[in-house]
Amino acid sequence: MRIVPIILCGGSGTRLWPLSRRDFAKQHAPVLGGASPFQRTLARVAAAGRGHWDRPVVVTGAASRFMAAEEARAAGVVVDLALEPEGRDTLAAITLGTLLAARRGPEAVALILPSDHLIPDTAAFGAAVERAAEAAAGGALVTFGIRPASPATGYGYIRPAEAGAADHVAIAEFVEKPAAEHAARLLAEGCLWNSGMFALQAGSALAEIRAQAPECYAAVARGLTAAETDGDALLVGADFATAPKISFDYAVMERTRAARVLPVDFAWSDIGDWREVWSLLPRDADGVGRDGQVTTRDVRDSYIRADGKRLVCALGLERVLIVDTPDALLVADLDRAQEVKHLVADLEAEGRPESTTPARVHRPWGWYQTMDLGDRFRVKRIQVAPGKQLSLQRHHHRAEHWVVVRGTAEVTRDGETVMVRENESIYLPMGCLHRLRNPGKIGVEIVEVQTGAYLEEDDIVRVEDDFGRARAS
Amino acid sequence: MRIVPIILCGGSGTRLWPLSRRDFAKQHAPVLGGASPFQRTLARVAAAGRGHWDRPVVVTGAASRFMAAEEARAAGVVVDLALEPEGRDTLAAITLGTLLAARRGPEAVALILPSDHLIPDTAAFGAAVERAAEAAAGGALVTFGIRPASPATGYGYIRPAEAGAADHVAIAEFVEKPAAEHAARLLAEGCLWNSGMFALQAGSALAEIRAQAPECYAAVARGLTAAETDGDALLVGADFATAPKISFDYAVMERTRAARVLPVDFAWSDIGDWREVWSLLPRDADGVGRDGQVTTRDVRDSYIRADGKRLVCALGLERVLIVDTPDALLVADLDRAQEVKHLVADLEAEGRPESTTPARVHRPWGWYQTMDLGDRFRVKRIQVAPGKQLSLQRHHHRAEHWVVVRGTAEVTRDGETVMVRENESIYLPMGCLHRLRNPGKIGVEIVEVQTGAYLEEDDIVRVEDDFGRARAS
Repeated sequence: MRIVPIILCGGSGTRLWPLSRRDFAKQHAPVLGGASPFQRTLARVAAAGRGHWDRPVVVTGAASRFMAAEEARAAGVVVDLALEPEGRDTLAAITLGTLLAARRGPEAVALILPSDHLIPDTAAFGAAVERAAEAAAGGALVTFGIRPASPATGYGYIRPAEAGAADHVAIAEFVEKPAAEHAARLLAEGCLWNSGMFALQAGSALAEIRAQAPECYAAVARGLTAAETDGDALLVGADFATAPKISFDYAVMERTRAARVLPVDFAWSDIGDWREVWSLLPRDADGVGRDGQVTTRDVRDSYIRADGKRLVCALGLERVLIVDTPDALLVADLDRAQEVKHLVADLEAEGRPESTTPARVHRPWGWYQTMDLGDRFRVKRIQVAPGKQLSLQRHHHRAEHWVVVRGTAEVTRDGETVMVRENESIYLPMGCLHRLRNPGKIGVEIVEVQTGAYLEEDDIVRVEDDFGRARAS
Repeated sequence: MRIVPIILCGGSGTRLWPLSRRDFAKQHAPVLGGASPFQRTLARVAAAGRGHWDRPVVVTGAASRFMAAEEARAAGVVVDLALEPEGRDTLAAITLGTLLAARRGPEAVALILPSDHLIPDTAAFGAAVERAAEAAAGGALVTFGIRPASPATGYGYIRPAEAGAADHVAIAEFVEKPAAEHAARLLAEGCLWNSGMFALQAGSALAEIRAQAPECYAAVARGLTAAETDGDALLVGADFATAPKISFDYAVMERTRAARVLPVDFAWSDIGDWREVWSLLPRDADGVGRDGQVTTRDVRDSYIRADGKRLVCALGLERVLIVDTPDALLVADLDRAQEVKHLVADLEAEGRPESTTPARVHRPWGWYQTMDLGDRFRVKRIQVAPGKQLSLQRHHHRAEHWVVVRGTAEVTRDGETVMVRENESIYLPMGCLHRLRNPGKIGVEIVEVQTGAYLEEDDIVRVEDDFGRARAS
């Protein structure tokens, strides 16, 4: 059987703010330490498939493209990248993924997997996928229902036609995220958590999508017909964005008679908020989960995360959440972690850039981060990956001093090219045309001191760019 | 009458950590915004004395010397600086101050004032001082007893011989910081807060000190005899440090028959902990005091202070204290603010430098602050006051790149002297002998990028120094 993992890598996840941001989605954030949820998903698929599953397709967008590509490369996993021109919810993304799976063969089973879930037991996951794929091969549209570990209110539920069934069964009802009391009842009645993972035989699923959501099917198909290849990615055409913004559950699963749920027992989490993170990570005898430089005195059942370089101290607290990042700090009631998204909405309404952009800004060539900002100067740390280069650019309002602190940089300045080595520096006067390239085998790191009266990102004129950004600005 | 304000400017104040530190005492910290408590004390004395009081004497130590001098200069107040070789509690400091007041005339009244108190009503303060000074002129050792605004447990109390007296009266008893219930009883019984302010006629007070604490008197007198003038300060001799470490209340006030307390009604605070700061500063309708970039959602009766450049967000909290600084963050139960000192003791035991040293390190020539620290590099911001220069120095393990971002720096490098202007940079190779001077009328600000394998403060060889530091290291 041909199983094609379709990894959905869109969205943002404001509920894990300030670690994740609109421009730094949860699946790329080191929320559990070590590998990102996206990388864990790739590793899980590779291990569970034991070489039998097909090359994964990653359905993503411009915001995650380079991070997804870089993380896949770092994890040593070869993937196909399909770029939505715009996020249109799961119906469009799953339709796209299933159409791409169909290209591998009409009998292929698309295994739809969000990229931000945690499933520690890879073997159990693999076995469940094989069973789901068999059912899908018989024409069923199979969703995975997780046997609840608790009456969680952060998940939707699925009521199977037959409570306690061991194998896949028909679906009696999809239940929205319930209130606490309702959740306890659902648990008692044998309902399952709705995981958002599916096994779909390409031919039958596409027929169902076509029948239930013809508009979406047509929009995605047109987008795919007009798709262009750009480097390692398939850029889906603009028509994709005319697809209705609706979930696959609403549009298809709740309507089709082919819907089935496979009850599974493995531990599962969508890492949906900070309380969930606290419950997933190790805690001390007082129930305190901690990460980074943290000192506490009489603190219980709390989660304290020092991501920045700051020392974080807590005194006399209970059920409190502290998440410190270089540019934003969150202190909250642990039991109101679900409301963090409302706080982020407040910040966005206030026009605070911290609501959307992380301190460390990832770019196709590496990343940069502002370390100090003064009256007429800004200090940035810039890292360029081996073989990569920034655009050929100039600034109207600032001069730049670059001190190379690691590796060797090749700098082009008004036509002249110089190698700047560790502990050397170079000056780029206002208006000069310049470019930074890393010709080496290790990352180049520089400290940039900008001086001038206007020091924002939009003072940049791109003349040439490896990543298609010279067109945009 | 000759009133000589003696301003006690020692101590550290770990209870306002992380804003104040061992090396950055509370009286110099911008705890209430704007002028520091020390500057407010100078201004209060200047305004209350209306030109009739004598030039103040500031009794301080090496840690506060340059900050005290700089703050007095910035406030436009001329002071005498007397430097204790070591802090020895209030008996020695008050003895020293009173001996210095006696030099202005034996009938002089020493007005002993801690430098970290808040007294908003300058006129009421001035009137009380005049009354106290009159009593002191008659031979009494007068302490100021504040009529309590609440049954505070953070203050000691004084029981006057006659409850409800309007003028100065004898003292029946000194009471240690009480528990809550005891404090309420003391309040009902007409006890007063022990403010630690005194009016002492020099001749009679010194006679009492000599009688009650002859060892201390002798040690301080010997220290003063051996004192040397160093620039704007009087360096008291080493014998001072042999004085017993004891408070003036214990050693003298509780024993002498000349002790009197003057009940006063003005608002007063020793800004003793963060809850006190919260109660002193403006609060919104929900009881939230805030400073800096702070966004809250459903927060009540809390104090949130964003001193760093970070955005601080709080969600669903009550009676919580959040104090963010560039290198350390404190989150605590507001009602346990008194325990912050224990947390700081924990940090000190762990050897955390944040327990003692602030992120911005004040030096006689200005200040510096680490803005970024990498594997083999460190970025510092350095500000040099007009006319000041750093020591002539070299480093064995690091090279330095200096970018001037404000003002003009005069840089000496291996004998050669260059002017480095705004937006210019200079490179100081490892081992070179160098010096930074500000020859201008405005502060010079530079961004320093250090590179090397060892980047700590102790890699510094001082060859010459304006501030006597070439001898030490």
